[in-house]
Amino acid sequence: MKTENNEIKLNGNQPSIDAERLVRRIQELGQIGRDEDGKLIRLAASETDKAGRDAVVSWMEDAGLEIAIDRIGNIFGIWRGTDTAEQAPVLVGSHIDTVINAGIYDGCYGVLAGIEVIKTLRESGFVPSRPIAVAAFTNEEGVRYAPDMMGSLVYAGGLSVDEALATVGTDGTLLGEELEKIGYAGTEDPGFLQPHAYVELHVEQGPVLERMGIPIGAVENLQGISWQRVTIEGDANHAGTTPMAMRRDAGHAAAKVMTFLHERAVSSVTPTVATVGCIEFEPNAINVIPSRATFTVDLRDPDEQRLKDEEAALTKYLQELEPAEEVTITVERLARFEPVIFDKHIVELVEVASNHRGLESKRMTSGAGHDAQMIARICPTAMIFVPSDGGISHNPREHTSDSDLVAGANVLLDVVRHLAGKQ
Amino acid sequence: MKTENNEIKLNGNQPSIDAERLVRRIQELGQIGRDEDGKLIRLAASETDKAGRDAVVSWMEDAGLEIAIDRIGNIFGIWRGTDTAEQAPVLVGSHIDTVINAGIYDGCYGVLAGIEVIKTLRESGFVPSRPIAVAAFTNEEGVRYAPDMMGSLVYAGGLSVDEALATVGTDGTLLGEELEKIGYAGTEDPGFLQPHAYVELHVEQGPVLERMGIPIGAVENLQGISWQRVTIEGDANHAGTTPMAMRRDAGHAAAKVMTFLHERAVSSVTPTVATVGCIEFEPNAINVIPSRATFTVDLRDPDEQRLKDEEAALTKYLQELEPAEEVTITVERLARFEPVIFDKHIVELVEVASNHRGLESKRMTSGAGHDAQMIARICPTAMIFVPSDGGISHNPREHTSDSDLVAGANVLLDVVRHLAGKQ
Repeated sequence: MKTENNEIKLNGNQPSIDAERLVRRIQELGQIGRDEDGKLIRLAASETDKAGRDAVVSWMEDAGLEIAIDRIGNIFGIWRGTDTAEQAPVLVGSHIDTVINAGIYDGCYGVLAGIEVIKTLRESGFVPSRPIAVAAFTNEEGVRYAPDMMGSLVYAGGLSVDEALATVGTDGTLLGEELEKIGYAGTEDPGFLQPHAYVELHVEQGPVLERMGIPIGAVENLQGISWQRVTIEGDANHAGTTPMAMRRDAGHAAAKVMTFLHERAVSSVTPTVATVGCIEFEPNAINVIPSRATFTVDLRDPDEQRLKDEEAALTKYLQELEPAEEVTITVERLARFEPVIFDKHIVELVEVASNHRGLESKRMTSGAGHDAQMIARICPTAMIFVPSDGGISHNPREHTSDSDLVAGANVLLDVVRHLAGKQ
Repeated sequence: MKTENNEIKLNGNQPSIDAERLVRRIQELGQIGRDEDGKLIRLAASETDKAGRDAVVSWMEDAGLEIAIDRIGNIFGIWRGTDTAEQAPVLVGSHIDTVINAGIYDGCYGVLAGIEVIKTLRESGFVPSRPIAVAAFTNEEGVRYAPDMMGSLVYAGGLSVDEALATVGTDGTLLGEELEKIGYAGTEDPGFLQPHAYVELHVEQGPVLERMGIPIGAVENLQGISWQRVTIEGDANHAGTTPMAMRRDAGHAAAKVMTFLHERAVSSVTPTVATVGCIEFEPNAINVIPSRATFTVDLRDPDEQRLKDEEAALTKYLQELEPAEEVTITVERLARFEPVIFDKHIVELVEVASNHRGLESKRMTSGAGHDAQMIARICPTAMIFVPSDGGISHNPREHTSDSDLVAGANVLLDVVRHLAGKQ
């Protein structure tokens, strides 16, 4: 891929994807895996996941793609092209497994748009300089088997395939056995295709693009995540008989930490976010001062140093709070991921492609985890976001307008056309 | 009762209670009702309560007292005296029912000290001008049957005896049937003794006396209580993808309210206390901004107007918070009791009696509820507190030193001697 002086040529006639077919297939896949209450549930390696996979494979075949399944169940639809089979492929894709009571766009959009892009390019007479492939990665959601983003993690070499296949699910099943059962325990070694580049198209799952009225997000990085559990211990005294000055109120101390974190993040000039999502008091009685408050802290920033600064600020605050409130504080680290920086040339390409289509774009950060963060370990990678109504995701109310879906797919088409074009 | 220019005469030889016997009986009663794990449980009208009542009645009989049981099961040990049977009696007492896994002092101390006081006065040759009686009120704790302080409430006419007897317990039992079963469904009508005055000796159940090194609390009032449940509703957005400025974070709003309440109470020059004892977030997930935070607010003040001011300040704060944080707030009133002002002459008498014994005393507020607050409706009433180690109560670690127990009982003795003496 070359981007000379930010001049990216998107030469030739400019094909567009079949809008009606893309939207129809998204709806169609979204009907596969409904339970008796109408809830969409396609947990990884389940019978409903099999049904979804079968539909995806049939659409890949319809696009003339060669199907390959690796040992962790990742599905690849590959257009080898003529005399280009030995080249590193341009890879697009995402995942089709879902959470419980899911929306229809998360993941599926990227896979189905990828199929659509390759089919469109083939039918347009485009002559690629390298193969183009679309992937549906196994178990991105991590609901049934931990960790999430498992298929792409294994593919990128971050977890051994044997270890992953031995994962015991929340329902006591073994992932390896379940993949065998549904016929998606493939034979290819994960990583068998070493991509030239990876581009993942996804719904934003946040409110930024919708609020700003911008159709395309050129995702330049993915936030680092710091999860901690803070436990504050005080004394469970009587709420009536204990004067304020004689209290060791773990609940009050927790409220101070929450207020500190929120105000610090709000006043930050960086995109830092801070969330306290879980809380618990003990003994949790109306007339007893909490002896213990336990809460989680979710800190995110796209810059590793800034994320470290946020963690350090919390640590310092807790150290000062301990003597001030006469409480004992312990902190447990639950998870820590460094930020992922995407490939700047692909990000530029997304901007240029959007501009060519007359679509406004915005450089942005991904606040959620995606397969792209794993594949970024092995090749230049970036993501394209389209708006999510109300920022809602992992919920039946997840929604993106048809026009935004089509616009995003056409930007992906142009980006892929450039990446796989004659250089 | 007369207190001329604060000169209270405690004439004649000054008897003292039998310290060893009082301490021994407190320990003895504290062994009645232990379960297989050694936990003290004498829930109202249970078989263990019966065993405790039987011991108390035997000690009342040992003191030469006439036993009377009323229809709600309150036990009275009455020393009628000679030619004074028609006078209104001086009443002392408390309760002997306990919470689950209780300490041995709460309530029991006041009943056993009362028996000791009357026995001592009788044996000292004291000639009372009116009867002296000691009461053990039914179901002060309210653990098995609601409301708490039931026996004294019924006695003071605040609840009909038939309604109280029909109360269904947490175990599905009827209080009336259970009292019959243990042989403590008496025949006297509650209120049959109309007291001249009521004095309740009790452990503080708070840390103030111990922290200040003062052995006697002259309790001049009992806090009013306001219990409310606050529910804050926001939006359950993704903790990673939702910028701080686009959040409607119910948990953050709750933390602000908690901080406001605490700081306001701490900086108050009044003895206001504010406690958030219970909290719950929904969906309570580490990576989801809370869409709902529910928490309780316990506000207490011995002055009704000040308590109303605290409630109004909270209401105003919530009204301002709603638009500022873009959340919806609802408030539910759970309970509201006005403060109780005790009889100033008896409070003075407690101070003078302490001084006569060389004991420092301190006027104070009761932060907990007691039978005295009910009996205050029908006669001049006050309370005497002794220190509680660490302020701990409703717990096996509840403890008061023997010397403090004895000192408090001797102050009660002197106060009763004055109230029932020749005027």
